[in-house]
Amino acid sequence: MGANRNVLKLFSLLLIFTVSLVNAEEKVEKKVDALLSKMTLDEKAGQMTQLTLKAFTNGKSGDKLKLDENKLEKYIVQEKIGSVLNCGGRALSPEKWLEITSLVQKFAKKTRLQIPVIYGLDSIHGAGYVAGSTLFPHNIAMAAAGSRQLVQQMAEVTALETRAAGIRWNFAPVLGVARHPFWPRHYETFGEDPFIASEFAEAYITGLQGDKLPLAEDKVLACMKHFLGYSYPRSGRDRTPAWIPEIQLRELFVPPFRAAVQAGAVTAMINSSEINGRPVHASPFYLKKLLRKDIGFSGFVVSDWADIDNLYTREMVAENQREAVKIGVNAGIDMSMTPFKIDFKKHLVSLVEAGEVPVQRVDEAVKNIIKVKFQAGLFNDPFEDDKLSEKIASKEAKKLNERCAEECITLLKNESEILPLKKEEKILVTGPCSNLKSVLNGGWSRTWQGREEHLYPDSQNTILEAVKAEFGRGNVSFEKGADFDKLLDADKAAEKAENCDVILLCAGENTYTEHSGNIRDYNISLSQRKLAARLSETGKPIITILTQGRPRVVREIEKVSDAVVMAYLPGVKGADAIADVVSGDVNPSGRLPFSYPKYAGGFEWYDYKKSANWSSCKVEFQWPFGAGLSYTDFECSGLKLSKNSASKKGFDGLKVSFDVKNKGKMKGGYIAQVYVSDKVASVTPANKRLKEFKKIYLNPGENQTVNFDLPAEAFSFINAECRRVIEPGKFIIRAGGLKKEFTLE
Amino acid sequence: MGANRNVLKLFSLLLIFTVSLVNAEEKVEKKVDALLSKMTLDEKAGQMTQLTLKAFTNGKSGDKLKLDENKLEKYIVQEKIGSVLNCGGRALSPEKWLEITSLVQKFAKKTRLQIPVIYGLDSIHGAGYVAGSTLFPHNIAMAAAGSRQLVQQMAEVTALETRAAGIRWNFAPVLGVARHPFWPRHYETFGEDPFIASEFAEAYITGLQGDKLPLAEDKVLACMKHFLGYSYPRSGRDRTPAWIPEIQLRELFVPPFRAAVQAGAVTAMINSSEINGRPVHASPFYLKKLLRKDIGFSGFVVSDWADIDNLYTREMVAENQREAVKIGVNAGIDMSMTPFKIDFKKHLVSLVEAGEVPVQRVDEAVKNIIKVKFQAGLFNDPFEDDKLSEKIASKEAKKLNERCAEECITLLKNESEILPLKKEEKILVTGPCSNLKSVLNGGWSRTWQGREEHLYPDSQNTILEAVKAEFGRGNVSFEKGADFDKLLDADKAAEKAENCDVILLCAGENTYTEHSGNIRDYNISLSQRKLAARLSETGKPIITILTQGRPRVVREIEKVSDAVVMAYLPGVKGADAIADVVSGDVNPSGRLPFSYPKYAGGFEWYDYKKSANWSSCKVEFQWPFGAGLSYTDFECSGLKLSKNSASKKGFDGLKVSFDVKNKGKMKGGYIAQVYVSDKVASVTPANKRLKEFKKIYLNPGENQTVNFDLPAEAFSFINAECRRVIEPGKFIIRAGGLKKEFTLE
Repeated sequence: MGANRNVLKLFSLLLIFTVSLVNAEEKVEKKVDALLSKMTLDEKAGQMTQLTLKAFTNGKSGDKLKLDENKLEKYIVQEKIGSVLNCGGRALSPEKWLEITSLVQKFAKKTRLQIPVIYGLDSIHGAGYVAGSTLFPHNIAMAAAGSRQLVQQMAEVTALETRAAGIRWNFAPVLGVARHPFWPRHYETFGEDPFIASEFAEAYITGLQGDKLPLAEDKVLACMKHFLGYSYPRSGRDRTPAWIPEIQLRELFVPPFRAAVQAGAVTAMINSSEINGRPVHASPFYLKKLLRKDIGFSGFVVSDWADIDNLYTREMVAENQREAVKIGVNAGIDMSMTPFKIDFKKHLVSLVEAGEVPVQRVDEAVKNIIKVKFQAGLFNDPFEDDKLSEKIASKEAKKLNERCAEECITLLKNESEILPLKKEEKILVTGPCSNLKSVLNGGWSRTWQGREEHLYPDSQNTILEAVKAEFGRGNVSFEKGADFDKLLDADKAAEKAENCDVILLCAGENTYTEHSGNIRDYNISLSQRKLAARLSETGKPIITILTQGRPRVVREIEKVSDAVVMAYLPGVKGADAIADVVSGDVNPSGRLPFSYPKYAGGFEWYDYKKSANWSSCKVEFQWPFGAGLSYTDFECSGLKLSKNSASKKGFDGLKVSFDVKNKGKMKGGYIAQVYVSDKVASVTPANKRLKEFKKIYLNPGENQTVNFDLPAEAFSFINAECRRVIEPGKFIIRAGGLKKEFTLE
Repeated sequence: MGANRNVLKLFSLLLIFTVSLVNAEEKVEKKVDALLSKMTLDEKAGQMTQLTLKAFTNGKSGDKLKLDENKLEKYIVQEKIGSVLNCGGRALSPEKWLEITSLVQKFAKKTRLQIPVIYGLDSIHGAGYVAGSTLFPHNIAMAAAGSRQLVQQMAEVTALETRAAGIRWNFAPVLGVARHPFWPRHYETFGEDPFIASEFAEAYITGLQGDKLPLAEDKVLACMKHFLGYSYPRSGRDRTPAWIPEIQLRELFVPPFRAAVQAGAVTAMINSSEINGRPVHASPFYLKKLLRKDIGFSGFVVSDWADIDNLYTREMVAENQREAVKIGVNAGIDMSMTPFKIDFKKHLVSLVEAGEVPVQRVDEAVKNIIKVKFQAGLFNDPFEDDKLSEKIASKEAKKLNERCAEECITLLKNESEILPLKKEEKILVTGPCSNLKSVLNGGWSRTWQGREEHLYPDSQNTILEAVKAEFGRGNVSFEKGADFDKLLDADKAAEKAENCDVILLCAGENTYTEHSGNIRDYNISLSQRKLAARLSETGKPIITILTQGRPRVVREIEKVSDAVVMAYLPGVKGADAIADVVSGDVNPSGRLPFSYPKYAGGFEWYDYKKSANWSSCKVEFQWPFGAGLSYTDFECSGLKLSKNSASKKGFDGLKVSFDVKNKGKMKGGYIAQVYVSDKVASVTPANKRLKEFKKIYLNPGENQTVNFDLPAEAFSFINAECRRVIEPGKFIIRAGGLKKEFTLE
């Protein structure tokens, strides 16, 4: 939570909770206790066990998938497992989903206590595993779009389209701050900044869950993930060890999770890997002290995929499976995503009987889980009818998705204002991303890796198709020129370019997520660099469109490009938005939510320390955090502070305002950002830290004063004792290229 | 300290100290106290101030340098500064050095208390700033050579040749473990392993200081540096921030400094940068708790270059210079390398008078300094006569240097045993390192950056010259082919290659140290990759010689090379050793003391965690830690443990032995290494950790049993509470490709 506005929001949320939920919550607590008192150890252990859908299926995926009732009987009725996840391989139709989720709940109804199953799914950028659903831009793009409202609305659609499948639990949002630019899940985050991630955590969770629990009928529960430190593996590769000192952990990585808890997150998924030699799944420090005591989380904690087993197979902190279960549960894991077998449950029962896992720990875990099942409304009615299905991919949702795609696109370079192009210009579309739907959607799209072209809607345009639609088929020629991993006929592309006015080079990455996206060469692929080099020999202007989930090093391509448009992974409407930006129908307004590295060796972040930027160690970015051009000119002036100095004692924040004027000829969006720099502090201060932002829209000639309330906390940092403190001294407030000094005495 | 043998060494050292020094030390303490009681605050502050030689000179360097007696009068007599450092720009003759150091001490004699000045110099690989001195291989190469004895002997020569200049304090050894392979001071370290660094810390310091204090007349004091964490900047660039959690700090970075203190180090220089947001110069945690309380250091602490000023100019933890002095001195800095001005002293006096720096802190610092001056023998006689000068670069020293160079060279690839070459083979020598002396010596050689070719001895061969001498001028042709930064006439090189049997590609880096060596592209330079590619078209076998201080990525060059010889920075005798290895006159016996990265993105270390090496995240090295081929075949067998299991209680270590046989036809050196792997531990265990090594030499057919005493500590690690512990469980002992399991119960 970063601003007074947010404090107000929080208060109003608290008020709602206080008035409407204190009684309800007391009642729920009583019901949970009553239920718990009736449960056998076996039933408790069952609640703590989560299986993947494949454990129940005939092995087929998609709508050919069928549940095996013997397995449902075995696991749900006999073993009483409490949770199921996943889609069995690829997206299912809403009807199929309802069939499956209803059947699961029917079997749950057959158990002695009739405790409903909680079903979880990865709806990462829209309900990607629900066929026909709206595929939004990924979070990294939403972070660029810079609008809390859009994030919240996107989450609302995601909730509805997930709920339409009979599912009330979404394994989202990813709240790791992206501190390794080449980590393969970079695009699932809201970027490198903890403030943006915190604000969008709140917006997303509010959109997903609504403002009350138990959930309304078109809402689903959020699962904040992955707690903690997953987003900064030392090697950049997925699920490899992180070195994160506690100061930096609390300064950078904790805030989005704290914001999520304050916004009502009641489930958390855990980082599969280790921090500083301690697997998070095995660490009471992270799971109890940090998560519950310091952050105040009171929901339930689910492991990630097989991560209790990983404690003895990969992390090597347990001798065997039984010890892994003991360590994980005692550390604070409430639910184990086992995900195929129930050894976890067997071991847990034995461990409790042997006194090696206290029954109190199990009771606590089960209470956490049952309470959340109440909050999901599952005890009221775990079944879903199909009335939500018809709202999937509604006109409004599509409209919203278009807007998300348009707002995220970030113009990084525009030499001699080559963009927007005139409608009559002749364009060569080239590059490996020219004519693929998948590359606009990335991972978590219909399948895990998102690479099946045929699973995307017929109505989705590729960039080539969208450009043809925008500029007329007669003005557009195409030659792929390169695949991701090999050069094709670059000469032919160059030859075709000779007959065009401009080249649209569609560069980027093929789809991936998790370990499939590991890379050891951070440069954009050689074939694309070669294609760009060949094209540059034509002398024709090159406009490079980047569709990629992370900032692959593009120094060589940038050099020969007249314009660079960063589209991230903009979703099914992405190509249309790109074409509209190229033509000027849309004025780009995204701002880069991470620091774009210029070189493959030794990256920095926007909040670097001064000592990272001295002598010949200058920090160099390809494009800095916050970069983003417009087709119109915004002029900022009149930066005002409500006071120039204040006493630290009783300091309650600072009002900051400045004027933004659209001096150009086109309507445009502008993301106002306020940065605070602590000039001197007992922990080396960051260059600057983002403390507020707001997106506004101005017509030509229009002027607007943007007002911000910076809370006292905006002037705080984590000190050497790992406590958040405010130290007196001078601060620089920066906004819109302006700055003012502020003193705390 | 890693082995019982070392414990014995320690005990014998302690015994010597106990018997011969307890009384002496008591006497010194009394003298120090007596002196301190007479000192004014101004005199105390003077002792804590160190200036660089340039503060006293006429601005010229080399033997044209002249001291300005007015400045000596001002700073030494009036301001009573206690220490001087540096060479004023480049190496000086021993005569010039004696003139300078004597003059400095003469002025010190003019002060009221006649406290001698302690003069410090960077003799990093031999006395590099003393003209005509022996330039040894850099530490990274000595680590590869794998011999404690050679390190000690090298340090003995370094001591003598430094002392010959009238200097008794060497700013060496660098004891950071090289955990960032592209850090520009990588070559100054003993590699990535804390055990090797610890063992060589002891050997080096013993060689430098001898086994008693006050120093013998041909010895100098060591300065262990840079305490702590300098060697793992997050960005890889010099003096930029490090993130090192306390567990890893204690596990990896502390041990060499602990070993140095146990070996008698009485001075320490501090890391210029920050760890986890805290500049080490400002941190009582590092300077008091870790260094003095935990490690037991009792000497004095000197800042690095301007690093107290840097607290307010770069690190931004102080508002101004005065506060910087307050923070640094209160944190535990005893002496400030200011290095040009004496504001430090002025502020310090004022701070003590104002009660902001306790006089006790100043007294403690001054006692530490004065005591070390006694230990340096400066109170006996601060002047040096010229009798050591004639021993500089003695025949024995040269011989030793040859041996060091020969022992360090590491054969990394030798397809079809192309090496050694026959003496009659026709060789093309090519590449930017072919005909330069500097590239064999690296930084800290006659000048800071070591790039002045003319300052190296006429007697030094370049690789080209050495190969001509070895193979006969008629057999050797030369074409440079490429500079470091641009391709030259590669076609001509290829053309000449056609007339040869083999190509010797001399690749690597130009010289550098500190920030001058910062890089953003970790690959070896493009011009060299292009040259290699062009040469490979000839079909002639390529032998690549690498002279470089760090493992630049050479994947493309390795692919087209039949053999790869890593020569590091092997010193003035390096070229001869390289030629001898190529011809087979020397059988290579070095082992790589670091993990050689294969890719520029996301490096790993040899002691990686299993979770860094799973699924598609496999760890891949170009060459692993410990790699090193020989021209003979060593066969290891008969790995024996003194016991297969033991009770943790009272566990006093394990004897390990195995047999090594030279099955080949050439005499050879073999570095036996013993690794311990903890199978399961509460902190994710390392893949393996080096716990002992020993270099042996075997004639053809000869067999030797190598015996090691692993102390209990070899089975320990730093746990989550940051304490060194031994946990029961299974361990794997690995040596010579063999392994055995050992159980602690």
